Amino acid sequence: MSDQVARAIALSAAATNSKGQHLSPTELLNSFDGKIDRDALKELAGQSILEPRQFDRRTVVAIAQLSALLESRNVEMDKPLDGKIAITAFFEASTRTRLSFESAVLRLDGKVLSVPDGQVTGIAKGESLADIGEMFNTYGDVVIMRHPDTNCIDEIRKNLQRPLINAGNGSGHHPTQALIDWYALLKWRPELCSPNCPEEKRVHLGIIGTPGSMRAVKSFVRLALLFTGAVKKITVISELADPVGLDLNEPLEESPIPTEIVNDVREVLPHLDVIYVNSIAFLGDSYRNLDTRYKLDQDSELKSDAVILHPLARNEELSESLDCTDHNLYFAQAAGAVFVRQALLVSVLDRLDQISGISTP
Amino acid sequence: MSDQVARAIALSAAATNSKGQHLSPTELLNSFDGKIDRDALKELAGQSILEPRQFDRRTVVAIAQLSALLESRNVEMDKPLDGKIAITAFFEASTRTRLSFESAVLRLDGKVLSVPDGQVTGIAKGESLADIGEMFNTYGDVVIMRHPDTNCIDEIRKNLQRPLINAGNGSGHHPTQALIDWYALLKWRPELCSPNCPEEKRVHLGIIGTPGSMRAVKSFVRLALLFTGAVKKITVISELADPVGLDLNEPLEESPIPTEIVNDVREVLPHLDVIYVNSIAFLGDSYRNLDTRYKLDQDSELKSDAVILHPLARNEELSESLDCTDHNLYFAQAAGAVFVRQALLVSVLDRLDQISGISTP
Amino acid sequence: MSDQVARAIALSAAATNSKGQHLSPTELLNSFDGKIDRDALKELAGQSILEPRQFDRRTVVAIAQLSALLESRNVEMDKPLDGKIAITAFFEASTRTRLSFESAVLRLDGKVLSVPDGQVTGIAKGESLADIGEMFNTYGDVVIMRHPDTNCIDEIRKNLQRPLINAGNGSGHHPTQALIDWYALLKWRPELCSPNCPEEKRVHLGIIGTPGSMRAVKSFVRLALLFTGAVKKITVISELADPVGLDLNEPLEESPIPTEIVNDVREVLPHLDVIYVNSIAFLGDSYRNLDTRYKLDQDSELKSDAVILHPLARNEELSESLDCTDHNLYFAQAAGAVFVRQALLVSVLDRLDQISGISTP
Repeated sequence: MSDQVARAIALSAAATNSKGQHLSPTELLNSFDGKIDRDALKELAGQSILEPRQFDRRTVVAIAQLSALLESRNVEMDKPLDGKIAITAFFEASTRTRLSFESAVLRLDGKVLSVPDGQVTGIAKGESLADIGEMFNTYGDVVIMRHPDTNCIDEIRKNLQRPLINAGNGSGHHPTQALIDWYALLKWRPELCSPNCPEEKRVHLGIIGTPGSMRAVKSFVRLALLFTGAVKKITVISELADPVGLDLNEPLEESPIPTEIVNDVREVLPHLDVIYVNSIAFLGDSYRNLDTRYKLDQDSELKSDAVILHPLARNEELSESLDCTDHNLYFAQAAGAVFVRQALLVSVLDRLDQISGISTP
Repeated sequence: MSDQVARAIALSAAATNSKGQHLSPTELLNSFDGKIDRDALKELAGQSILEPRQFDRRTVVAIAQLSALLESRNVEMDKPLDGKIAITAFFEASTRTRLSFESAVLRLDGKVLSVPDGQVTGIAKGESLADIGEMFNTYGDVVIMRHPDTNCIDEIRKNLQRPLINAGNGSGHHPTQALIDWYALLKWRPELCSPNCPEEKRVHLGIIGTPGSMRAVKSFVRLALLFTGAVKKITVISELADPVGLDLNEPLEESPIPTEIVNDVREVLPHLDVIYVNSIAFLGDSYRNLDTRYKLDQDSELKSDAVILHPLARNEELSESLDCTDHNLYFAQAAGAVFVRQALLVSVLDRLDQISGISTP
Repeated sequence: MSDQVARAIALSAAATNSKGQHLSPTELLNSFDGKIDRDALKELAGQSILEPRQFDRRTVVAIAQLSALLESRNVEMDKPLDGKIAITAFFEASTRTRLSFESAVLRLDGKVLSVPDGQVTGIAKGESLADIGEMFNTYGDVVIMRHPDTNCIDEIRKNLQRPLINAGNGSGHHPTQALIDWYALLKWRPELCSPNCPEEKRVHLGIIGTPGSMRAVKSFVRLALLFTGAVKKITVISELADPVGLDLNEPLEESPIPTEIVNDVREVLPHLDVIYVNSIAFLGDSYRNLDTRYKLDQDSELKSDAVILHPLARNEELSESLDCTDHNLYFAQAAGAVFVRQALLVSVLDRLDQISGISTP
């Protein structure tokens, strides 16, 4: 075994979560005989990643397959992003998401131009996002943007000619987080990939929060609607009269997946297979933390094999007392984030061919 | 065609502006038979880039030639900045200029130490610029600094032993921006390079703003004075009694190029070939935006072939309604910025020899 | 001589201090016949660097040896940190220390994920350090953290599985600075390495400040206690009744090195061989500058061959009038910082074998 390979394995071995369930990418890969749906990924070349609505189930599964391949092998040897520059433009500060993207780029030998805090910019001098997009054309090859304004996407794309990856736009969307969420679920239970998931493997999803004002939750639900043969019910638990919001009302009504809204978490908790929790809702320009009435801890009446997802960072709504239990899928979910972002970057920047040994079906 | 070359061409093809005139580097290169004035560039090795006064016309043209070569070929393959570290020390925040320099470094395989916001530093603990210069000696190979204090250059150079590139010092100078401005003009009309520019190609420059307190404008005018055979007149349009300021009064008086100051933009606008606009003036420690009386838009009475330059970011003084017209040279100007900064870095860090196939006259 | 080697030498030659004593690494290396105590360094593989107490004299000397090797040869050719990502997580901003670490990483071909100002993070949303540690597991290979809270180390290590390098924790420790301080002293007088340092080479250390609330000073004294055969006396000069503090009281009492506390700097100054000055003390959550009564300048009654150390940034306590004298060891001390941090990173990340031509005793 060469020194380089040994080093790669050492790296890979360590890159996992410290507590909770550990999710191996191998089972997911094996369920497809190690094959990747390359055609679905090829269609992402040169495309922007803006909102979950742009994906069908096949593409979500293909991204999960490539993520699993990237997680199981150290493809950084292949240097697939060599010569590419990613701009991480965080006009709304988020160290976690920014570093996750930047780590994805650097591990694959790409380079990073970092804007850690967009408030410290020419914008202070009144520069428009459209003009910033014009500048970015010559600075990098892909732009990863987070912005507090929901309309930022249209604004920057007036002049931007490079692919844009939306890392969260106001109360809009958070598509890469939703792909990360589903990567965790598909690793946890690969049968969910299939439109004909066996009855006993199908899941009842519980959403604690308000998809209408929580972009991560909204994007998660959007992808859930693609898995019609796998999701048997969606329950939204919220104190609000209309937690679902305009963007999701119609899709939920039109979906064959039954939906319900309940007020009391205790009523449904024992029936849920997957519980999605989030802490932060947008209210106009400000944040609002989740009502602590909906706090989950080790005394919550969870199904014995129920799993919890949380995009983190968390506040009081998710107790650390759950970290060492098998309900904790949120640490494994976080541990998969870099690989999903790598899969997206490799696809968008059209560098699939640089990854050696991809099997296609 | 190798995979690498194909990739390089793809990269290059996309790196241009979205709207307005497109400037090809080829015409400028061809006007010199593809040859570069290597001797002029060699003299920059190990030198600091502090103010436009240090350049003669020959050097400005040589930098434009190298910029054009860098823009026309993907010399990033040559990795000319391999092993070099550039420190971008922005004590006055400017994301656009910082990213432009950092992109220049990274594309040529150099590395970057980034100080995106110098206010978040040990300076808060009272550290002097002289001591910071001492530290930088061991951290990097070249320092790119922007600072709100005009005297910062002398201060940091008390101990700094590395070349310094001035990316804007208070109301002082902005030499790299001026080189970018002239790179755009020389690509637009290569005849301007010559001391014997044909009469019909010579230009009447209009400056909307106050060179005295606008460092970018001041540096642009300084370089304009080098092109005595090409600039037939300079008109400064300003509401102020003395918009020119101490630094420029004498050079303008001594120059063979006739100069005038007017108050009303409408009076001269129809006669100008090139209009330079800027939005920001320094007034002591603060900024002041340009009086909106001097706003340019699609209804302004411009000569049909007049072009507008603006260092951006802009405010109200330059309307987006001009973006899709051929008057818009400012987007092409911005698109050339990275290449000019690369040309400077390669020259200052003495890495011209790493660039394959440079023809010398 | 190859082009690469010539370039390397040019780099190395320039990387030194502008004023004060110049310290060559050669003499230190020669005093060990160019040999490195590789076994001592191998024990650091995978370890965190948390506080000076974890080191014995042998390890401190081995780190100094490797630092000297790195300073004397351009081992960046060996690219010993290739494929490794360091996260510089500065929750307390310090541009100098951050850039010093980042330069160390980049020069050895590692990569950097930078958090220049931790206040601009998800922490603003209430994220715990423990959760941040969990995230870092998948982002990088080593975490370099500075934090205003003394308890931060335990907190982040709840979930962090990567080696942690403490770059300053509140009023706690600053072990890498202490190693840098001692690297300067051992280069200045290699005889101090030996447990049987000749009488005339032994040093009387003076500490101007309060080790109890100054982490850099506290860590420096901690390492001083390891050099029992070389340090003949430690004098703390402070206006406070108990400047030494809880952490150091017992170790100082138990040490064979005699200690004293004095109030008046003039009383002891003429007897000191090495004077350690610092400017900043922690008082709960805030800083406090050193009382200017203890200001050193060119008129201070120093022994003719006395040397001054200061971790910088400085304020009024250390006058620039001393910069051009041979008392100035603080610039040479700063010039050694990058090499000590490189030595630590290479050891912790187990990449000693990537450095060609290390001789072992």
